Amino acid sequence: MEKVAGDIHGYTFGTTEVAASPVSLQELENLKITVGFTEEDQRSLLLAGEVLGDQTRQIVEHWRSGIIAGIPNLARHSRTPEGEANPEYLAKSNLRFQQWILDTCLRPYDQDWLNYQQEIALRHTSLKKNQTDGVRSTPYVPLHDILGFIAVINETIKPYLAAKNHSAEDVDRMHRAWCKSMQLQMALWTKPYADSRMAPNEW
Amino acid sequence: MEKVAGDIHGYTFGTTEVAASPVSLQELENLKITVGFTEEDQRSLLLAGEVLGDQTRQIVEHWRSGIIAGIPNLARHSRTPEGEANPEYLAKSNLRFQQWILDTCLRPYDQDWLNYQQEIALRHTSLKKNQTDGVRSTPYVPLHDILGFIAVINETIKPYLAAKNHSAEDVDRMHRAWCKSMQLQMALWTKPYADSRMAPNEW
Repeated sequence: MEKVAGDIHGYTFGTTEVAASPVSLQELENLKITVGFTEEDQRSLLLAGEVLGDQTRQIVEHWRSGIIAGIPNLARHSRTPEGEANPEYLAKSNLRFQQWILDTCLRPYDQDWLNYQQEIALRHTSLKKNQTDGVRSTPYVPLHDILGFIAVINETIKPYLAAKNHSAEDVDRMHRAWCKSMQLQMALWTKPYADSRMAPNEW
Repeated sequence: MEKVAGDIHGYTFGTTEVAASPVSLQELENLKITVGFTEEDQRSLLLAGEVLGDQTRQIVEHWRSGIIAGIPNLARHSRTPEGEANPEYLAKSNLRFQQWILDTCLRPYDQDWLNYQQEIALRHTSLKKNQTDGVRSTPYVPLHDILGFIAVINETIKPYLAAKNHSAEDVDRMHRAWCKSMQLQMALWTKPYADSRMAPNEW
């Protein structure tokens, strides 16, 4: 599997450290049908992975420094509770953010992927935020901020998909597949937030 | 305000029947910033409203009969618990679905709109589903199905936005604004699902 760096701190995809998702593979298959996620979308994501492969650092910089850093409500989640920057935390989570782009495009959406979606979600809730990197920061990322920011991700990814001279049609196809994957992932990420035994009241 | 029919059963937008949203206008403004929803997007939605105005019936037919009816997990929410069709329920909720397209495009996103987003969300949860039309059906629509189906809505709306001979650039602009509005609305709709005093465990 392609990785953005040899050592990605806290990246536990496919390891025994990741618990089984409470969502079943059958539920994932049903969700794919609801989203209209097809085999063509899967192929388009593979192409997107090729296209984005050497741009992940630049893309995450764009999101983090270009956008999130300018929105106090979002920037605070990478800072201390007192509002101080924590460059080490940011650097570590940025590498995982980069790898997430590749995983979105290149991984099969199987049991390991499903488990890791739940892990990603939990790491934004009070159950697991800050633990991976042993930092002090906000206790959780509110669900509405996660869903909201996906709009920015969907909009800003398009020029990067177009950066390798593919036809407008191919770029549109990759972009549609990307957006559908975001929709799948968003739906999965809401799971712990909507569960009264996990992370309720973190909207 | 433009309406798709003189009498839309259960459409209570802006009336005293709609409770105040637990989300504040300030939170909505912050969410708009997170989503990157700009004044240009608002203008693009007004144009989209013009374009879609006489197509809402066709669009909702496409979603309901063309897509939802073929996905048992989704279709059951308009049927009786025994799986029987309820054409009257469908007809009533379809009119509101049509009006929602117009409201998305033409309404200012103010306190009334914010309140109605919460009302829409509640009508999908066990707190309010089926009550508006006095029907027997599934107790709630799972959150992941709502989020999932927005992907289909976003994909299928585009040809309708392009149906009035606007430039590809204008169509793209309308579509981007539409998708951002969906993101705003999805974030708002998760509110009761993520609140342990409202509709937890309806993922």
